[in-house]
Amino acid sequence: MVFPSQLLEDAINEFSKLPGVGKKSALRHVLHLLKKDVADVQRFAQTIERMRTEIKFCTRCNNLADGTLCNICLSSTRKKNLICVVENFRDLIAIESTQHFNGLYHVIGGLISPLDGIGPEQLYFESLVNRVKEGEATELILALSPNLQGDTTSFYIQNILKEYNLKITAISRGVAFGGELEYADEMTLARSIQNRLPIENFVS
Amino acid sequence: MVFPSQLLEDAINEFSKLPGVGKKSALRHVLHLLKKDVADVQRFAQTIERMRTEIKFCTRCNNLADGTLCNICLSSTRKKNLICVVENFRDLIAIESTQHFNGLYHVIGGLISPLDGIGPEQLYFESLVNRVKEGEATELILALSPNLQGDTTSFYIQNILKEYNLKITAISRGVAFGGELEYADEMTLARSIQNRLPIENFVS
Repeated sequence: MVFPSQLLEDAINEFSKLPGVGKKSALRHVLHLLKKDVADVQRFAQTIERMRTEIKFCTRCNNLADGTLCNICLSSTRKKNLICVVENFRDLIAIESTQHFNGLYHVIGGLISPLDGIGPEQLYFESLVNRVKEGEATELILALSPNLQGDTTSFYIQNILKEYNLKITAISRGVAFGGELEYADEMTLARSIQNRLPIENFVS
Repeated sequence: MVFPSQLLEDAINEFSKLPGVGKKSALRHVLHLLKKDVADVQRFAQTIERMRTEIKFCTRCNNLADGTLCNICLSSTRKKNLICVVENFRDLIAIESTQHFNGLYHVIGGLISPLDGIGPEQLYFESLVNRVKEGEATELILALSPNLQGDTTSFYIQNILKEYNLKITAISRGVAFGGELEYADEMTLARSIQNRLPIENFVS
């Protein structure tokens, strides 16, 4: 594709580096911005630049933050004694979107995976242990991916925290809401039978 | 959705103003940029800001341009005697993408549409007539949308240019390549029978 302007071509190239954005969508975005006021486009560009240059990590939970602590750690309405351990920021956002968790988080930054060369020393376990040591939390919810790496990491966390008086739970696994039993994989179905719950748990 | 950082939320809001980008895609773009080097993100932001603030319109054809003239008008390999009249920049890009046109363009900036209050005086016809007057062009190709407004505009252009010795053509219309006759609308099919061409025209 030949573009009549280098400025335009550069902008399209930059947009098409974003995930899932091809040349056509990039052109659409650029033409959209061309129709906008200069001030709007400047705000767009500056907001993104500021986001990248000024964003920090929360010194308590390793979540993304504007300053030393993230908005979740700073919030006065959150239950301080409940810590949900997540792999990364994406999972944290997924849980936040449910609007059914009102505690704090701890982002460990990955899962233990010896095959990929990721050991416990590369993840944020030390700060987690420190938080528990300070007596902040009474319950830890492990919300890690239901796979080998997630299970290994869950096991490791239970191990390093066993000396503390702490309730450790994990998010429940089973057949998804709206899912059909017939199409659930054997592993999930077997586990959901083993971990069956009293029926009153399902009445909301 | 609650975000742990205002900077992040602002960036997501800015991205989600783009056409076809929702909150989820915006989050995906922002997380992608967060993983990139600061320099890369700064280049992204600055390229977009520059594009909006520095881009100009070609003084000859009203196309987007970096300076006084656009790259197409500046090109030495283009046929200067062939001018393709298009409604807007999007159509120009569509024709450029075919790589089958090697002349110059004239962007008129819209179509005559009395119902929408758009008359000839709001469109770039004067500069088109001037280009023809200067004897630059020998053929004018009208590549306007095949609808009432497009036909009105084509008719108007033929009228204002009838005193000049100029070949005026229009892009052909008919059943699309790969289309099924059965599903073509009656108007298109009827016109494509009226405007039938010798078969050798279809051998490329």
